[in-house]
Amino acid sequence: MAQPILVVGSVALDDIRTPFGAVRESFGGSAAFFALAAQCFAPVRMVAVVGTDLDSQYLETLRQRGIDTSGVEVAPGRTFRWGGAYGFDLNTRETLFTQLNVFEGFHPKVPTAFRDSPFVFLGNIHPDLQAEVLQQVEKPRFVALDTMNLWIENARDALLAVLQSVHLLIVNDAEARQLAGEANLVRAGRRLLALGPHTVVIKKGEHGALMVREDGMFASPALPLEEVRDPTGAGDAFAGGLLGHLAASPEPLGLALRHAIACGTVMASFAVQGFGMQGLLAARPEDIEPRLRSLRLLTQFGPADSLHEMGRK
Amino acid sequence: MAQPILVVGSVALDDIRTPFGAVRESFGGSAAFFALAAQCFAPVRMVAVVGTDLDSQYLETLRQRGIDTSGVEVAPGRTFRWGGAYGFDLNTRETLFTQLNVFEGFHPKVPTAFRDSPFVFLGNIHPDLQAEVLQQVEKPRFVALDTMNLWIENARDALLAVLQSVHLLIVNDAEARQLAGEANLVRAGRRLLALGPHTVVIKKGEHGALMVREDGMFASPALPLEEVRDPTGAGDAFAGGLLGHLAASPEPLGLALRHAIACGTVMASFAVQGFGMQGLLAARPEDIEPRLRSLRLLTQFGPADSLHEMGRK
Repeated sequence: MAQPILVVGSVALDDIRTPFGAVRESFGGSAAFFALAAQCFAPVRMVAVVGTDLDSQYLETLRQRGIDTSGVEVAPGRTFRWGGAYGFDLNTRETLFTQLNVFEGFHPKVPTAFRDSPFVFLGNIHPDLQAEVLQQVEKPRFVALDTMNLWIENARDALLAVLQSVHLLIVNDAEARQLAGEANLVRAGRRLLALGPHTVVIKKGEHGALMVREDGMFASPALPLEEVRDPTGAGDAFAGGLLGHLAASPEPLGLALRHAIACGTVMASFAVQGFGMQGLLAARPEDIEPRLRSLRLLTQFGPADSLHEMGRK
Repeated sequence: MAQPILVVGSVALDDIRTPFGAVRESFGGSAAFFALAAQCFAPVRMVAVVGTDLDSQYLETLRQRGIDTSGVEVAPGRTFRWGGAYGFDLNTRETLFTQLNVFEGFHPKVPTAFRDSPFVFLGNIHPDLQAEVLQQVEKPRFVALDTMNLWIENARDALLAVLQSVHLLIVNDAEARQLAGEANLVRAGRRLLALGPHTVVIKKGEHGALMVREDGMFASPALPLEEVRDPTGAGDAFAGGLLGHLAASPEPLGLALRHAIACGTVMASFAVQGFGMQGLLAARPEDIEPRLRSLRLLTQFGPADSLHEMGRK
């Protein structure tokens, strides 16, 4: 029986430009991408803030998928807005603008019914707000946290404080290097372990992900795709698949983590195939298992007989 | 019984600067790095040119390892020289100078005893010279080719011509995108297949490698290492391990390729751990199998029982 996951993060209207097109005011935000991916595996409870300008159909879309949006506050003012443009190979992104809007005075309120959530994902918001959420949750079994260069630079102490209560840190390679002050990614990962989390997962975009733990490492390539339209939200979809699998798995966390990262990789592969939320919305639950199989086969190598065995399965 | 591999490429004296140190006039070059890696698996026959200034101990080092250097011509003048500097995360490299020297008037002469070589590696030299080598070899079973942005820009027709006779193209991700005129790596790989080779292997440095074939793809992460000192020669060591395994394997090529890429990944991991040739020279044959096992475990994921099985082996 899958356990519920509490997510806190942004709900946003995104302006996105990639070499393959552009969208304006596209429904997005870390909490929304995470929730859509995680709900394929486990019940999701969402804490966020939106403005009065947000088209009610957006939250309705999440509710229709079974996501509990009763922790989404509607505040007077405009919804958080973000604009970004991607380079020709989608590996570089320029932030064009960030309008905090209703996020500016936001303090997350975790509804009473959400406080027993055993799994918590602290999406990329100010570390003080991430800490406020944790204070409202009763002894969660597993807490994962995402962050970004802005907080590493401007709210480092607050970030280090909240990391003490976190089991899994999910960051990209540049953030890992910056937070650890170490260019070598393996050593950076090990240094981050010393900050509190027992597991660090470093996202590398089209190059996949690397997990670093005291007891070993795990590396997953991204699924090679011929059609990649928009990487926005891929990192949150990755986290959603990862925590979703953990919350649904009967295995001990340590054993389930590798499979969980594979699930994250699969959800990210759906996310990048459409603009904004379209890729995730188009993915059906029955599409997950075939991609997991593709991912497993993708990295499998000799001896030849074991490959034949893989092929038979 | 391992079959012999003919390699043509550069022998060089390299000036290298990385964040971890600098060396001057370090023995290197594509043919030398390739040969040292490949000879761990199969007999290697080398065709190259050096100047009269090259310390004789360098070629002696190769001979002591069993590499047949009878195709290395000593020409009047100075040995090829290259200088490069790497950025803080070793992912960017600036070429400081290239002195062709004896390479300028070089035309490879394949000794009669080398002409029956079933495996051929055309290291990164002008595609006209790569073609001259192929003309001197009798029906090789497997030809692999490496190239670079310089030839893609300045000798594109010659490169396209020699690619017709090549089975495996090995390039890095930037070269793949440039040669294919396509930013998406999977589509770039497929376009390169249309140029002649039945297999394309795209090297991504610390992010591993991606193989693209008509019948499927294979992805390998690089081995995560805490000590990476100098990436110079890693791509040629990768190619050496790859062709070395193919030449030594009793399996049909199509089945051996994944394992071969893993062997290339392992040899590259040795190469980057020391400056210039030091990493490869320090690696012992008995070090290869443990790294292959680490690489296999690195990407393995659930269900948990199969992981336990992996651990028992």
